[in-house]
Amino acid sequence: MRPVNGGGGAQVAHTLVECVPNFSEGRRPAVVAGLRQAIAAVPTVHVLDVHVDPDHNRSVITFAGPRAAVAEAAFRGVATAAQAIDLRQHRGVHPRIGACDVLPFVPLGEAALEDCVALAAEVGERIARELELPVYLYGAAARRPDRRRLADVRRGQYEGLREAIAGDPDRAPDFGPRRLGPAGAVAVGARRALIAYNVYIEPADLELARAVAREVREADGGLPGVQALGLAVSSGVQVSLNIVDYHATPPHRALAAVRAATERRGGRVLGAELVGLLPLEAALAAAGEALGLGGLPPERVLELAAAAQWRDWELR
Amino acid sequence: MRPVNGGGGAQVAHTLVECVPNFSEGRRPAVVAGLRQAIAAVPTVHVLDVHVDPDHNRSVITFAGPRAAVAEAAFRGVATAAQAIDLRQHRGVHPRIGACDVLPFVPLGEAALEDCVALAAEVGERIARELELPVYLYGAAARRPDRRRLADVRRGQYEGLREAIAGDPDRAPDFGPRRLGPAGAVAVGARRALIAYNVYIEPADLELARAVAREVREADGGLPGVQALGLAVSSGVQVSLNIVDYHATPPHRALAAVRAATERRGGRVLGAELVGLLPLEAALAAAGEALGLGGLPPERVLELAAAAQWRDWELR
Repeated sequence: MRPVNGGGGAQVAHTLVECVPNFSEGRRPAVVAGLRQAIAAVPTVHVLDVHVDPDHNRSVITFAGPRAAVAEAAFRGVATAAQAIDLRQHRGVHPRIGACDVLPFVPLGEAALEDCVALAAEVGERIARELELPVYLYGAAARRPDRRRLADVRRGQYEGLREAIAGDPDRAPDFGPRRLGPAGAVAVGARRALIAYNVYIEPADLELARAVAREVREADGGLPGVQALGLAVSSGVQVSLNIVDYHATPPHRALAAVRAATERRGGRVLGAELVGLLPLEAALAAAGEALGLGGLPPERVLELAAAAQWRDWELR
Repeated sequence: MRPVNGGGGAQVAHTLVECVPNFSEGRRPAVVAGLRQAIAAVPTVHVLDVHVDPDHNRSVITFAGPRAAVAEAAFRGVATAAQAIDLRQHRGVHPRIGACDVLPFVPLGEAALEDCVALAAEVGERIARELELPVYLYGAAARRPDRRRLADVRRGQYEGLREAIAGDPDRAPDFGPRRLGPAGAVAVGARRALIAYNVYIEPADLELARAVAREVREADGGLPGVQALGLAVSSGVQVSLNIVDYHATPPHRALAAVRAATERRGGRVLGAELVGLLPLEAALAAAGEALGLGGLPPERVLELAAAAQWRDWELR
């Protein structure tokens, strides 16, 4: 591979941002392709990953680029989803409130989280104004403490929110109408990179998966920075993890905890999958652990150590 | 961190080469600092890692740069070592024949192994001519089949070679005099990147370490592409591995084999260390295994996936 370009070179003129929309469509490939296309059509935006899950009936598109381009691509993705996806028909094992269910902005490189907070507000306000969709700000972009957690924003899902949005002042959106149409609502947020990671276990017993999820998640006294759900999927059951603070709990340690909790109940871990991308730091932490090294800083990896010098070699 | 600069950008004007000399000095910091300095003084050469081992009484300096600069730095490193290190006084647990004991050239980026074969011959010939040291070509640069393996070139170590070099035609060097002075001889070679990896085990029983090494090394029917020695060091015993083909045996699998062989004999693994740097591919393979993912291709790692786009973002 072509090694890395580290520090010391020209500055990037733009604030770089990653965006990871979750769309409530994982069964109609043409719809997912249309979403991808709408996003990738914006110049300088690059789609880094598309994860399609038919059981969740959900797709996660990871893309990145300069701030303004990412804002435009995110808006176009939501507009396309609102036209193509009808929540009244949608069934899937993952909780959801809208066609574009979640729209998080994540700082990359030199970008700051505060910048993504401002971006979430800008894009959220535009979605409400131009698409007439209710928008809830969550994560670091939340304007009320009870909206920091996505699970709270999504309480009752589409069906429950449709009933509550007009009458319950606590469920009034931050922007947009107090009514839910076929495209539902959008949770727009800012956060640091997280790791979405599904661990498959057997036997295929939903109660087992739920018990393991309860044991490992922070909300019930488990691992710091870990959210977890037990879900039944077509191939069996999974413990679906969102590791929102992988410094507190790196994914290899979350897997060890899921394994211990599963084996204590007489089951076993079959394997795992990533949804979206894994931050390099978490990959190196897992490698260092697997190799008995304690840690593995990037400067101990040949291509990453050479990366810092690459520009010097190019210029001469 | 600043992400990676992937393909699609300007071509590097030079063939990039890595060089990983092993010097027979690991106890006098001033001598090691002098070796590093001699190498780093060559413009465009970058020292990526220095590993000093007092038990082995040996240092490994990893550096890289354009071909011609690496050739010059390698020569200066050997010249400095030949002046500073006297093999008649040298004691250490690692086998050696010279002050600069081993001088391998490794292709980086677009460079070809054949190019490093030619480079080894050029630098080896210069060492013999200007420093009057015997030079043995090994690895892919070997000109006789019985010199491909470093262990064969180093047979009898400095003391044995000093006796054999004049009389035994099979021990005549490829370049230079048929006599061994205080600086000994240099094994100059070309190879692909390898992983030098020491696994510490207990109890601190040298026979245990040797038995485990015999079980896991290719030469005795063990793992493909793995060389191993059992060594006693100040903190205990280690199985010292050279993984010369990490596609055949990735390091996490070598560690598993050492662990199994050790535990079957009633011992256990305490930890491990890298000597020099780890290729990214081996790091990601270990991470993929540790996370239950099967594999982990670079495009599933956020910073590496974004890397390919970095130049595009810089230029706009």
